[in-house]
Amino acid sequence: MIKAAVVGGAGYTGIETVRLLLAHPEFEVTVVTSAADAGRALDQVYPSLAGCGLVFEDPSECDLAAAAEVVFLAVPHTASLAIAPGLIDAGVTVIDLSADFRLKDAAVYESWYGSKHSAPHLLGTAVYGLPELTRASLPGAQLVACPGCYPTATALAAAPALEAGLVMPASIIVDAKSGVSGAGRSLAQGSHFSVANESVKPYKVGSHRHTPEIAQTLSAVAGSPVSVCFAPHLVPMTRGLLSTVYMQATDGLTASEAMDAYRARYADEPFITVHPEGVMPSTHDVTGSNRAHIGVALDEASGMLVVACAIDNLVKGSGGQAIQCANVVFGLAETAGLSTYGPVV
Amino acid sequence: MIKAAVVGGAGYTGIETVRLLLAHPEFEVTVVTSAADAGRALDQVYPSLAGCGLVFEDPSECDLAAAAEVVFLAVPHTASLAIAPGLIDAGVTVIDLSADFRLKDAAVYESWYGSKHSAPHLLGTAVYGLPELTRASLPGAQLVACPGCYPTATALAAAPALEAGLVMPASIIVDAKSGVSGAGRSLAQGSHFSVANESVKPYKVGSHRHTPEIAQTLSAVAGSPVSVCFAPHLVPMTRGLLSTVYMQATDGLTASEAMDAYRARYADEPFITVHPEGVMPSTHDVTGSNRAHIGVALDEASGMLVVACAIDNLVKGSGGQAIQCANVVFGLAETAGLSTYGPVV
Amino acid sequence: MIKAAVVGGAGYTGIETVRLLLAHPEFEVTVVTSAADAGRALDQVYPSLAGCGLVFEDPSECDLAAAAEVVFLAVPHTASLAIAPGLIDAGVTVIDLSADFRLKDAAVYESWYGSKHSAPHLLGTAVYGLPELTRASLPGAQLVACPGCYPTATALAAAPALEAGLVMPASIIVDAKSGVSGAGRSLAQGSHFSVANESVKPYKVGSHRHTPEIAQTLSAVAGSPVSVCFAPHLVPMTRGLLSTVYMQATDGLTASEAMDAYRARYADEPFITVHPEGVMPSTHDVTGSNRAHIGVALDEASGMLVVACAIDNLVKGSGGQAIQCANVVFGLAETAGLSTYGPVV
Amino acid sequence: MIKAAVVGGAGYTGIETVRLLLAHPEFEVTVVTSAADAGRALDQVYPSLAGCGLVFEDPSECDLAAAAEVVFLAVPHTASLAIAPGLIDAGVTVIDLSADFRLKDAAVYESWYGSKHSAPHLLGTAVYGLPELTRASLPGAQLVACPGCYPTATALAAAPALEAGLVMPASIIVDAKSGVSGAGRSLAQGSHFSVANESVKPYKVGSHRHTPEIAQTLSAVAGSPVSVCFAPHLVPMTRGLLSTVYMQATDGLTASEAMDAYRARYADEPFITVHPEGVMPSTHDVTGSNRAHIGVALDEASGMLVVACAIDNLVKGSGGQAIQCANVVFGLAETAGLSTYGPVV
Repeated sequence: MIKAAVVGGAGYTGIETVRLLLAHPEFEVTVVTSAADAGRALDQVYPSLAGCGLVFEDPSECDLAAAAEVVFLAVPHTASLAIAPGLIDAGVTVIDLSADFRLKDAAVYESWYGSKHSAPHLLGTAVYGLPELTRASLPGAQLVACPGCYPTATALAAAPALEAGLVMPASIIVDAKSGVSGAGRSLAQGSHFSVANESVKPYKVGSHRHTPEIAQTLSAVAGSPVSVCFAPHLVPMTRGLLSTVYMQATDGLTASEAMDAYRARYADEPFITVHPEGVMPSTHDVTGSNRAHIGVALDEASGMLVVACAIDNLVKGSGGQAIQCANVVFGLAETAGLSTYGPVV
Repeated sequence: MIKAAVVGGAGYTGIETVRLLLAHPEFEVTVVTSAADAGRALDQVYPSLAGCGLVFEDPSECDLAAAAEVVFLAVPHTASLAIAPGLIDAGVTVIDLSADFRLKDAAVYESWYGSKHSAPHLLGTAVYGLPELTRASLPGAQLVACPGCYPTATALAAAPALEAGLVMPASIIVDAKSGVSGAGRSLAQGSHFSVANESVKPYKVGSHRHTPEIAQTLSAVAGSPVSVCFAPHLVPMTRGLLSTVYMQATDGLTASEAMDAYRARYADEPFITVHPEGVMPSTHDVTGSNRAHIGVALDEASGMLVVACAIDNLVKGSGGQAIQCANVVFGLAETAGLSTYGPVV
Repeated sequence: MIKAAVVGGAGYTGIETVRLLLAHPEFEVTVVTSAADAGRALDQVYPSLAGCGLVFEDPSECDLAAAAEVVFLAVPHTASLAIAPGLIDAGVTVIDLSADFRLKDAAVYESWYGSKHSAPHLLGTAVYGLPELTRASLPGAQLVACPGCYPTATALAAAPALEAGLVMPASIIVDAKSGVSGAGRSLAQGSHFSVANESVKPYKVGSHRHTPEIAQTLSAVAGSPVSVCFAPHLVPMTRGLLSTVYMQATDGLTASEAMDAYRARYADEPFITVHPEGVMPSTHDVTGSNRAHIGVALDEASGMLVVACAIDNLVKGSGGQAIQCANVVFGLAETAGLSTYGPVV
Repeated sequence: MIKAAVVGGAGYTGIETVRLLLAHPEFEVTVVTSAADAGRALDQVYPSLAGCGLVFEDPSECDLAAAAEVVFLAVPHTASLAIAPGLIDAGVTVIDLSADFRLKDAAVYESWYGSKHSAPHLLGTAVYGLPELTRASLPGAQLVACPGCYPTATALAAAPALEAGLVMPASIIVDAKSGVSGAGRSLAQGSHFSVANESVKPYKVGSHRHTPEIAQTLSAVAGSPVSVCFAPHLVPMTRGLLSTVYMQATDGLTASEAMDAYRARYADEPFITVHPEGVMPSTHDVTGSNRAHIGVALDEASGMLVVACAIDNLVKGSGGQAIQCANVVFGLAETAGLSTYGPVV
């Protein structure tokens, strides 16, 4: 068993990572930290983990490098900057779920996140943790920067079309819909039940911090700069994220050519399903699993290729993808410990 | 009191029209028909109307022209074609909630709805029932074709920008999200609780029948043909509809110019609220009211003007708008009988 | 128009009272106070009230007695103790939505609420504001103590059986289910969307503060002390409250006798519907209305009379009932300004 | 691998059984039948099973005895009567999820289900499949009658108190709340999204078919006849079931004695968690897992012991329990293939 620690384990992405690791055949959870909940049993905070036997530890009192071969950082941005370098120096593998090592350009990071990037020397070695796009670089990586939930679904939706040159890279519109768990465990009016329930609402249109990450990934895939208009929406459900991507098709593209390109691109992917033509994905179908479901439609009248990708924001969009990356880093079966079937009901 | 009948009163748009009429100070409901539920009390089918005293009548046995000065047709497409002409000949005002008289070109109707248009002579006299755009033509109109829920929200979102020339009419993307009540009362797997709950899903991308209606309305507003890419989505809530419209801004447009144009356009509208810059609408805020809430954002990086409009699909998107139109047709206060405040919680 | 003020207007019960008053034909809202939101427009906090023109005022700077003939107190317990006596001395009518004047025995109040009752001299004159039980005492009352949401639904469910002697008063079980808005606007993990959604959970079993109020009301109705076991549950919906009451039937009671008693008791009540035998109420049918729907079932095998009552916790369970009381106090039509029909969908 | 077949695999209990079996280390799914969906791929009907490779087979063309060592019958009542005897004669193990072999008295079955029991000779050998109560009889059993979802949660809640004589067996009240998936896949107004959403509603009070099964189980546990008043409620969530059981405590019972009895009774149970005193269970905490969470409260004023048990109606209340039983029957680890942790969010 490979010893694993989760830092920031009391937040939603952290505890989901813990939950998945508890059922993993190759990783053993040795430490889970939480500054706010230190000393409390995990199942006192999250009764669904009843009987797991773990207790949140105070991060300031943990020797992570002694306790784990791999550390999952489920912390807010800037916090990973403070933790990751030391772990890497100590030879520990870091799977970072924060935003700190996702953007390749420290200046872009500083502009969008409003704080100094204190470890730009690591940006070159950090591998972006989206195995469907970056699998070849993952084995043996010491620092993996896992993508955000919106960039994951959007990149999986757009990449095949951009790679195959089916669409113009010029201007891509991303209308994304996220369940409320994406807003995390912190209390806020926007995720108060009576406010969020029975309502759909756009937020941070054009200003969400995942925007430059989406642009960076799509530009890399397209091989030329891609401009992205990104509008996230909050939808009244706990889990699930759908990204609907609108791309201007090249002249003469047919629906069956588009379908063929998507099917071929993802033919060997263990976690990706491309639906038949005319079938669009439901987020519920991937709840609890690490799978992404993709639907492709060509709107011939307007010439737009519309691709929707559904994921569970806390699994493929967060903890599940982190484990998928760790599996590849350590040479395990890529699907180890990860469910490929969502609940049927 | 003006005598009013509702045909097709047992469906969701019909019964919502009845509910609103029951609280209206100027209209009196004399007849509600339903072929399937004829003979049953309304409150047997819909207990929330307990005590209203009305009974569904068999449409084949009703003399609507004798019973009402205004008839609301809440029937599926093609059914209005069979009913409206006779009522109009008899001097009755018809407020049609079906699709039969919305499209000005019978050939477009026949192409999208797959059936012959048997009353093309009425297309010229039918007034499209979106008072914010067509108010001047409504007083005294004999046939009003009320818009669908998606076209209502989309037109209210896009019209000010197109009218003022703030955006290019060339290609407009409409990503809309509807509550499940939009699918009506008929049972179907897609609106089965365990299927629709906790899920968001696109459907009929590029092929939804509201597409040509949206294009017709936006083209009329723009004064030139507008191409629309329309992707509706089902969202896990009962009521509410949000249309997020993406339009390419003209060079040099600023956010404050866009805000000014929207505020000016809707300054005197009793049912429209333009939110301050940076504030986006929530569907919950308009639930139960006839109001539309609009948010405007200019994404400067991509040059897209993003406008979102939230309505209650069964009120401003259906029964409420029908009554708003009837108010104008009959010279009543436009807001009579219609709530302008949604529930605060 | 009668001038009305709402104190504590930014909480859920307060703002719902405001919303209903805004549509009331006889009351005019002159002042709405909120210590936390003073200076903000109501529609800035609650966009659904867009255009209402009101601004939250600082309660410490308001002369309520000068501004209003009736003051609705939508404040936490103990706060009314500080405000009500002065208003009453000034000749203002007080409709209190807090718990401060509901319990007739100051010692019981002090035991359950853990704080001193500073105005026990007013307990004798305060009228319990449940018109279906206390209507005769309401006209001209100066202080009305409106019941909590759970006691309202429970008393309406149990009263006819207890009054008619159909059941033993000895031991009554109340299993109640409330929507999450009952927990109010204050942020808490229990009403965080991702915690409350898709879950049902009992809370404060045997220790909820509405317990002595329920016992007091049922004892008064029965004419002898009634022991109550009260278990509230949180249910994943915004509004609505269902109280299922289990009472041991007297020997020989038949279902039709029970039905007759309920129908007779509520025959003239404008806000109460007794469903036919075998039909149970849904909370959705009363959402947004001031109505209570009641279903009665006699389980012959166990000899239990099971009565369920559904209300909207924020209307009949709070702001609506307060206005119903005010209507009676001021001699207006009891239904003035109150909807009797819930949404059909 | 033990070959397993699922009959009636397209319904919710059947497909959940299939989903769980697909992840089971010791069972291999060889056949899944569905009369209505024969010939369709499972993932065409349930996209969440994308890639599973199975196709629904026509039950009339399957030789189940040749295909499987164990057959799970997920069919409506009476259907198992037609299938089980032949399988048993052929030496196949039958895990029956229908009601056909749950009641020990054929006359009671016939009275509640309204049809003849054609295989009363098997009632004596059928083992009731609730391992926490009947584990000793399960190894090697040829016919297991799995309990319904309501009886499972209710029996787990009540058994320790009845066994230990902490409560009077005379009269027990069961107020249960189920998610809508309990109503199955068949379309009906009651499980139409717009009807079930945002509503709680009792149904079949005193007449639900699980009533005699609950009485039979509690009577067996108590060692004397128990009278049960059972009121099920529908709650607006997909999965989850909470049974709140009210039992009259014997004189002098203390809360800590009650807690001790529950903790002791379930100390070694792998799927049962008894919460600390004062903590009540949430259905969300057990969603997707085979676990039952139990909370115990003694209401000293009324002398009632209130015990609530939360399960996932489709796992511990159905497919998961069936597999738990099969594990014991075949001598496997009882937890094999079953999740013990629900989702934390």
